[in-house]
Amino acid sequence: MTLNVGIIGLGAMGSDHVKRISERTGGVNLVAVADLNKALVEKYSKKYDAKGYTDGAALIDSPDVDAVMVVTSPDEEHSQFVLKAIEAGKYVFCEKPLMPTVAACQEIIDAETKHGKRLVQVGFMRRYGKGYIEMKKAIDERQFGEPLIIHATHRNYEVPETYDTPMAISNTAVHEADLLHWLLGEDYESGVTFLPKKQTKYTRSNLHDPQIIMLDTKSGVHIDLEVFVNNHMGYDINCEVVCEEGTISLKTPTDVAIKTKFHREDHIPEEFTERFKDAYDNEIQQWVDSVQNDKLTGPSSWDGLIAMATCDALGKSRDEGGIREPIALPEKPALYND
Amino acid sequence: MTLNVGIIGLGAMGSDHVKRISERTGGVNLVAVADLNKALVEKYSKKYDAKGYTDGAALIDSPDVDAVMVVTSPDEEHSQFVLKAIEAGKYVFCEKPLMPTVAACQEIIDAETKHGKRLVQVGFMRRYGKGYIEMKKAIDERQFGEPLIIHATHRNYEVPETYDTPMAISNTAVHEADLLHWLLGEDYESGVTFLPKKQTKYTRSNLHDPQIIMLDTKSGVHIDLEVFVNNHMGYDINCEVVCEEGTISLKTPTDVAIKTKFHREDHIPEEFTERFKDAYDNEIQQWVDSVQNDKLTGPSSWDGLIAMATCDALGKSRDEGGIREPIALPEKPALYND
Amino acid sequence: MTLNVGIIGLGAMGSDHVKRISERTGGVNLVAVADLNKALVEKYSKKYDAKGYTDGAALIDSPDVDAVMVVTSPDEEHSQFVLKAIEAGKYVFCEKPLMPTVAACQEIIDAETKHGKRLVQVGFMRRYGKGYIEMKKAIDERQFGEPLIIHATHRNYEVPETYDTPMAISNTAVHEADLLHWLLGEDYESGVTFLPKKQTKYTRSNLHDPQIIMLDTKSGVHIDLEVFVNNHMGYDINCEVVCEEGTISLKTPTDVAIKTKFHREDHIPEEFTERFKDAYDNEIQQWVDSVQNDKLTGPSSWDGLIAMATCDALGKSRDEGGIREPIALPEKPALYND
Amino acid sequence: MTLNVGIIGLGAMGSDHVKRISERTGGVNLVAVADLNKALVEKYSKKYDAKGYTDGAALIDSPDVDAVMVVTSPDEEHSQFVLKAIEAGKYVFCEKPLMPTVAACQEIIDAETKHGKRLVQVGFMRRYGKGYIEMKKAIDERQFGEPLIIHATHRNYEVPETYDTPMAISNTAVHEADLLHWLLGEDYESGVTFLPKKQTKYTRSNLHDPQIIMLDTKSGVHIDLEVFVNNHMGYDINCEVVCEEGTISLKTPTDVAIKTKFHREDHIPEEFTERFKDAYDNEIQQWVDSVQNDKLTGPSSWDGLIAMATCDALGKSRDEGGIREPIALPEKPALYND
Repeated sequence: MTLNVGIIGLGAMGSDHVKRISERTGGVNLVAVADLNKALVEKYSKKYDAKGYTDGAALIDSPDVDAVMVVTSPDEEHSQFVLKAIEAGKYVFCEKPLMPTVAACQEIIDAETKHGKRLVQVGFMRRYGKGYIEMKKAIDERQFGEPLIIHATHRNYEVPETYDTPMAISNTAVHEADLLHWLLGEDYESGVTFLPKKQTKYTRSNLHDPQIIMLDTKSGVHIDLEVFVNNHMGYDINCEVVCEEGTISLKTPTDVAIKTKFHREDHIPEEFTERFKDAYDNEIQQWVDSVQNDKLTGPSSWDGLIAMATCDALGKSRDEGGIREPIALPEKPALYND
Repeated sequence: MTLNVGIIGLGAMGSDHVKRISERTGGVNLVAVADLNKALVEKYSKKYDAKGYTDGAALIDSPDVDAVMVVTSPDEEHSQFVLKAIEAGKYVFCEKPLMPTVAACQEIIDAETKHGKRLVQVGFMRRYGKGYIEMKKAIDERQFGEPLIIHATHRNYEVPETYDTPMAISNTAVHEADLLHWLLGEDYESGVTFLPKKQTKYTRSNLHDPQIIMLDTKSGVHIDLEVFVNNHMGYDINCEVVCEEGTISLKTPTDVAIKTKFHREDHIPEEFTERFKDAYDNEIQQWVDSVQNDKLTGPSSWDGLIAMATCDALGKSRDEGGIREPIALPEKPALYND
Repeated sequence: MTLNVGIIGLGAMGSDHVKRISERTGGVNLVAVADLNKALVEKYSKKYDAKGYTDGAALIDSPDVDAVMVVTSPDEEHSQFVLKAIEAGKYVFCEKPLMPTVAACQEIIDAETKHGKRLVQVGFMRRYGKGYIEMKKAIDERQFGEPLIIHATHRNYEVPETYDTPMAISNTAVHEADLLHWLLGEDYESGVTFLPKKQTKYTRSNLHDPQIIMLDTKSGVHIDLEVFVNNHMGYDINCEVVCEEGTISLKTPTDVAIKTKFHREDHIPEEFTERFKDAYDNEIQQWVDSVQNDKLTGPSSWDGLIAMATCDALGKSRDEGGIREPIALPEKPALYND
Repeated sequence: MTLNVGIIGLGAMGSDHVKRISERTGGVNLVAVADLNKALVEKYSKKYDAKGYTDGAALIDSPDVDAVMVVTSPDEEHSQFVLKAIEAGKYVFCEKPLMPTVAACQEIIDAETKHGKRLVQVGFMRRYGKGYIEMKKAIDERQFGEPLIIHATHRNYEVPETYDTPMAISNTAVHEADLLHWLLGEDYESGVTFLPKKQTKYTRSNLHDPQIIMLDTKSGVHIDLEVFVNNHMGYDINCEVVCEEGTISLKTPTDVAIKTKFHREDHIPEEFTERFKDAYDNEIQQWVDSVQNDKLTGPSSWDGLIAMATCDALGKSRDEGGIREPIALPEKPALYND
């Protein structure tokens, strides 16, 4: 049975998902697209023979649509469509962040809990990267004993002028905020954001760059994360998990090595789309598969809330000059326990 | 428009393609399966809601089927279905080898030429490996000057007892026979197969292992290829192209690095299915896309014939004690010129 | 002119230097050895045809001895011989630490300053590692812009039971305390020692393992250092300097790569003697050369004091639960300004 | 006891050894230098306080000289000094090649055999490279079973105009000719030199570049060697030994890794002096040590003859168009059996 999917939001990320669902995902048809921008709706509905909507709610209500992807911008608009999909009892994939505040995430959790079944998946695509999957397996199996420390970096070649100091947490570190507690299989205890005095000349007055983030978990694992978004080197994601009997590190896989004038070189990706293309593809394929199996397996609304609670604590720490902040979570509904 | 595909042959490779077409390829539906084995037909037709046939010809004739994949075994059966598909004017993907003899390949070429349009693609999936694609781009653009030498290895952990000396060429080196002339964009001039006196203890009387193959091209590029199929180390494919100003090498991409007791390690694949999973997926996705664009882009019948002519010369060289053998090709029909 | 050297202290480290001076260093003769242990004196004086002393002071006074190496244990004994050598106007190489307290280092500095010429070199051998030398050159030349962050690890396979919590700073982090300010060419501003809750099962009640150290410099470079001395993996020293336009990382050089059953592996050293053998050899050869040129180029008494002041601050931070501690230095005598 | 050494030949290589013996080797004094060029003699005898000679024979006869190094150019002059040293009963280190013909090597062997004790060591410094030593240990211990195949490359950035086609064997491949039979612990059976049609644009009419060499051993190990001396990439030496259960490869050790604009890079050496600096230092230190122990351990006159016999066969194969040539050796004197 082919799954019929509708996509709300046709910006850069949305059009990427439109292409992915139509051309590179098995077991699925794109049947509807929605955006406030009529020209975009026309373009994609024509290109992919899908029904076009300017009203996302109408798309959700359409009986042709089995499941929905919400990729709207700004992020604040996510919840109206997610809540509407829950109301309609339809599976909904929502790009990260679920919502930019803990309270708004909680509202979705409440609706989903009331509905009584997980319908929402949040787009934390890193969990679908092959390297992270191998790392999680090694950690889960304690192949090298207990994990003790994680060293991570999140580095971008450059960011636009609109990217400011708080976005280092809300747009960038949020990926690791989700990823690392999933990798370790436990919750955070507290966090610190530290702004080193020395900054790159490639930054601007509205952005402190680089920043140093520290997290520790309930069991006492220490995490440090360098966020450096104008590194003028490349998109360079690293993660080393130090265990009792060895370390497990993410590698940037490369397919070719060049030797030329007095050096040997490997490519570093320019963009996250290049680095995590496979992760995005796997994420969506597995979402489609899990919807067809009527049992979601990906990041939940609860994971969306954890990420926001973590970002809140990190932001508070930053504003208060690097004080360690506790990361408190509300009670976890039973729905999210497996 | 979704492409409706039928698959003939449900053995190991065939069932892999059934799964790929059904679950991991976009823009395509599996509508029919065929095999002489009724139980397999029943299993897959039921699982994927596809029509079942024991007669491959009937599958080809079905108006439900837009395009055909031929994955039958033994290889000698390929041509009957390929010819039938050409007759029916349907696109047909045929697993390698097209046919095991030059004459049988020529017969298909004649039929396709008479039909006047390329309909046949041969399953040389290596061309879809990301590393080889990057290498070909660098060679085509002469990024490091002219290519002069290629060093390659084709190594397997082990092979079954039925694998004998000639199969080192027909089943193993055939991949490089296709790949390397495509990579260089030119034809071979001659070839040598050399059987070194010292063999691994892991081989048997019916298999000389390892073997050394050499090819040179019309322009004079020298190629050496180690074929070692009981290497008891892993599936280890290497290819270094030595150019005038640098070298370009294939890497086995790895996603994770481990450090443990006094060493750092990277994984080596156990099987070709692990190493080239992405290549198979890309191959089939691009075949589907090209069929929908009504213009094939993958390896042609002519490429299938080149591979067989190359294997013939290499086999003759081996039987004659390592004499250099010319690799002669018939006249190339204009159909295959772009 | 061959330099005649006497060595005081014939323990593990001392006998290593005896062998190095006698067998692997050019332009030098070992003419005298001293130790309280008569058997050791007899053994080495006989083996290398050197005069034996049980009184280090007598060795220093001997007119046969041009320059002295002090490798005694415990560390507290260093200063008596170093001060004696200064008094005698002879060059003296002192194994690290110069003395275990800032005050005792200051006493040596005062004596040397009074003498009016640098005579003392401290055995911070890491500065002679080829990787660090390349890194320093790249930093000094600002090849990749300003340095902003350093990530470092100091990992040992295991340590004996006598190794306790403070030694993670005084015996282990002391290497980086010296190395990193030299690498950056500037002084530290403050330091933190943080004890993560989760420890390895391979540690004991007297040792908190691992520990996390942070330093920042006057210009604001942020440094983090993992000290993990029972890592049950190997002697694994890492250092990545993150600059404005790239990063420079220390590698553990390996001479051979192995491929065997499903993995490719590189060796990780078991001990510091293996990892830094070249650094020790270069250190001593360059010390001999510089003494012959009558101008020391290696780490000075002042560097010895900086290391102790840094360790003091880090120890205080640890004892106070991870508070950031300032690292204050006395006024720097002009003698140490070039 | 310090060894007193005299060096004959003060060209580039000779002055390098003068510096090494004087400044970087333990247990040795440079007491005499000789060259036909008076200015050079004056320069080095003054700089290192050594006695100067224009007559090498007089240097050998000097009672101050315990052992001799012969580094004269042209190579044809080696034997007069080597024979003179044998006559004088003094140890003599001779830079490679011992002599450029098998007959001239045999003459030295005869003299040494008559003398009844090994006095001559030939300067095949590769055997002292750490990587090759590790590889030989793994092969000798059959850590991965029997060796079956060796793939090697010998690549230089560029060579001067005087370097012609035969020198690819006599100056370049001669290193591997010595190294590989030592690595495997057995003699060669035959060899081939093949000149591929396609050459680099960076070569000239007097030099065919690259060239392909093949050797096989008595037990049947197959060796291929790429010689490419204007590769316009760097000094790039590779060697992979394929065994029954794994492969062992030489690595070019690097101390630092750089990440900058979209790539990660490792350095490739520009010259052999950079790549094998350690090997030269170890070679000379171990020669000094072995002379002091009165028992040579390095490459012998017999090894010098093997290298020449191998080069002769490879040259004959090249001149005859790539025919396989047997490599025959005279009877091996018992002197060289351990």
